[in-house]
Amino acid sequence: MPTAPPHPAASETGDKLLLTPGPLTTSAAVKQAMLHDWGSRDAEFIRINREVLERLSELACGGDALVTVPMQGSGTFAVEAMLTAFVPRQGKLLLLCNGAYGQRARRIAEIAGLAHGMMETPENVPPNPAALAARLEAEPGISHVFVVHCETTSGIVNPLAEIAQVVRRFGRALLVDAMSAFGAIAIDARRLGLTALAASSNKCLQGVPGLGFVICRKDALAATKGNARSLALDLYEQWSALDKTGQWRFTPPIHVIVALHHALAEHRAEGGVAGRCQRYTGNCRLLVDGMRKLGFQTLLPDGLQSPIIVTFHTPADPKFHFQTFYDRLKDRGYVIYPGKLTVADSFRIGCIGHIGPEHIAGALDAIDAVLAKMGVSRCAPNLAA
Amino acid sequence: MPTAPPHPAASETGDKLLLTPGPLTTSAAVKQAMLHDWGSRDAEFIRINREVLERLSELACGGDALVTVPMQGSGTFAVEAMLTAFVPRQGKLLLLCNGAYGQRARRIAEIAGLAHGMMETPENVPPNPAALAARLEAEPGISHVFVVHCETTSGIVNPLAEIAQVVRRFGRALLVDAMSAFGAIAIDARRLGLTALAASSNKCLQGVPGLGFVICRKDALAATKGNARSLALDLYEQWSALDKTGQWRFTPPIHVIVALHHALAEHRAEGGVAGRCQRYTGNCRLLVDGMRKLGFQTLLPDGLQSPIIVTFHTPADPKFHFQTFYDRLKDRGYVIYPGKLTVADSFRIGCIGHIGPEHIAGALDAIDAVLAKMGVSRCAPNLAA
Repeated sequence: MPTAPPHPAASETGDKLLLTPGPLTTSAAVKQAMLHDWGSRDAEFIRINREVLERLSELACGGDALVTVPMQGSGTFAVEAMLTAFVPRQGKLLLLCNGAYGQRARRIAEIAGLAHGMMETPENVPPNPAALAARLEAEPGISHVFVVHCETTSGIVNPLAEIAQVVRRFGRALLVDAMSAFGAIAIDARRLGLTALAASSNKCLQGVPGLGFVICRKDALAATKGNARSLALDLYEQWSALDKTGQWRFTPPIHVIVALHHALAEHRAEGGVAGRCQRYTGNCRLLVDGMRKLGFQTLLPDGLQSPIIVTFHTPADPKFHFQTFYDRLKDRGYVIYPGKLTVADSFRIGCIGHIGPEHIAGALDAIDAVLAKMGVSRCAPNLAA
Repeated sequence: MPTAPPHPAASETGDKLLLTPGPLTTSAAVKQAMLHDWGSRDAEFIRINREVLERLSELACGGDALVTVPMQGSGTFAVEAMLTAFVPRQGKLLLLCNGAYGQRARRIAEIAGLAHGMMETPENVPPNPAALAARLEAEPGISHVFVVHCETTSGIVNPLAEIAQVVRRFGRALLVDAMSAFGAIAIDARRLGLTALAASSNKCLQGVPGLGFVICRKDALAATKGNARSLALDLYEQWSALDKTGQWRFTPPIHVIVALHHALAEHRAEGGVAGRCQRYTGNCRLLVDGMRKLGFQTLLPDGLQSPIIVTFHTPADPKFHFQTFYDRLKDRGYVIYPGKLTVADSFRIGCIGHIGPEHIAGALDAIDAVLAKMGVSRCAPNLAA
């Protein structure tokens, strides 16, 4: 809770606003959904759980060909379950990488002993579909391609449709880390021909953290039996048990799932993916315009910028000290996010969660006031790393 | 919520009482702790998280030699992280097995490719320390021994102190699945010389599900670098990141952790492990006495019975149909648990969670009434399988 002058637009529960890429500010009602206990074999919980999984498949435009398999843990648990399920021992994975989450997938592949190759671009440069085509042509042994839809490292949206088209053309399988965009940037998994995507409860769906999930082609999943390197992260067995009994193999994070059920109802009421995209895009527009007026520069040109999170260059003024800036904003009720770039000094501000224009306006006022207190001049950003 | 006559002692939040081995009935205050949002890098959350981990080590009587490493997911995630961290590639694991959780550990070892052997006893027979001594003497290649403290399959308490003494005598390492007993049956990890134990948030600590943890010797953990077969379940890296920064590597289940923080305060207020053990033992005594009066027989003799969960033989009367019995009890607000035994037809009733004698008395009344409605005679149980 704020210790400095109260911010004009607090969260519903009086907490600091999380202008972060998630965990994020959720609605009061989403949290209130957790005020009960259910048994894991309870019919009511089984219904709630089934509705969550069906709705997630719908959000990926799945139809009957897709199925959603939940995974306890964070989004990374779902990404690891996806990669280790779908890439068979005789397969090879090509990782398109322009940030920390591409690097994390590479680490998963290394540890699991998956044959893999990399196509890296700098953090502010999307993967090049033409280069991908050339690589797939040259390497027929590549069975699977992995890409991060929106790299939270920078906030860049990667060109999923173009990448999917190339992967389809060469008859390979596409695996997507859709973590930070799912629910706010449309993905028609069937039309794109995706084999699987992974995401989580606590990003654009505005649930609380503790659940990942993989949405995937049923026929492809059915062929993954025995591929897993882990009991807990075995996607095939997780699906198989749920499919047979409606129950989880191992204790599910019940309260997190019930909260997500409510969050999905709010998502639907807002107009689904299109409605949420519209609000986040408005938040992002307001934020970028306001920050530019205050003298900040974005890392990315507008054409590459997602409505999820924005990276700003650190101001050149030596009076700007990030930790002080961060702490003073937090005192005013706004939690921002440190940078993760290797290419430049930066920080990040998220546009997602149960927040609207009034909260972004409040954050901009707070940033203005904090800069003034720090004596930072509104001038050129520090474009050197 | 009950649809039949309201039960005399409902849960605080009007939910059915979960007489199950967890997820279980938690206090209203534990759930209310989840009514806020925190960022995962937030100083307040980092403090709460640290307090949780420190208190868990204290509950294992750890001192400075032990450390608690949390793991996202269910308890099985923590058991897999523990086994795959501590048993090195050149080691061999001996699994003492008398139930489903011992079998699950075997499956983890198989999938991870850990060299392992088994010592099995029937579900109602504890492992034999003398036989263990003979096996360890005969097989010097066995580096680690695994045992389940309380096997929820039957409700048996295995003789941890005697097993630990044998393992220490032969200079091997002991890994314990303490899932369903931790917080209610005392474990002095240091005195027993345990290398590690695994447990979770949603058993006797009375938190909500979504978090496992491993309490282990720091020096032994420090030697496990590189042993993990998984990025997500890598116990060493999980510890290393927390130790360096106070932050989790990957998004933590924040609300679950904050709920556990409150649950640990309630645990302390109840008198810690001793206080909780006393209440559960009272619940168990009332339950067993009452059920015996109703004609039921327990699987286990009282000397092997844990105060966690009790297995009852299914009555011999052909009018007894478990699903009907279960459903009618649920209608009256009491959720019991199916059997998992291979040796006999059975069902289970849990003694743990935010429940007291008034709830057990209410459950016994409901069972009496349901049996009468079903027309089941109060006679001999079905002791054949």
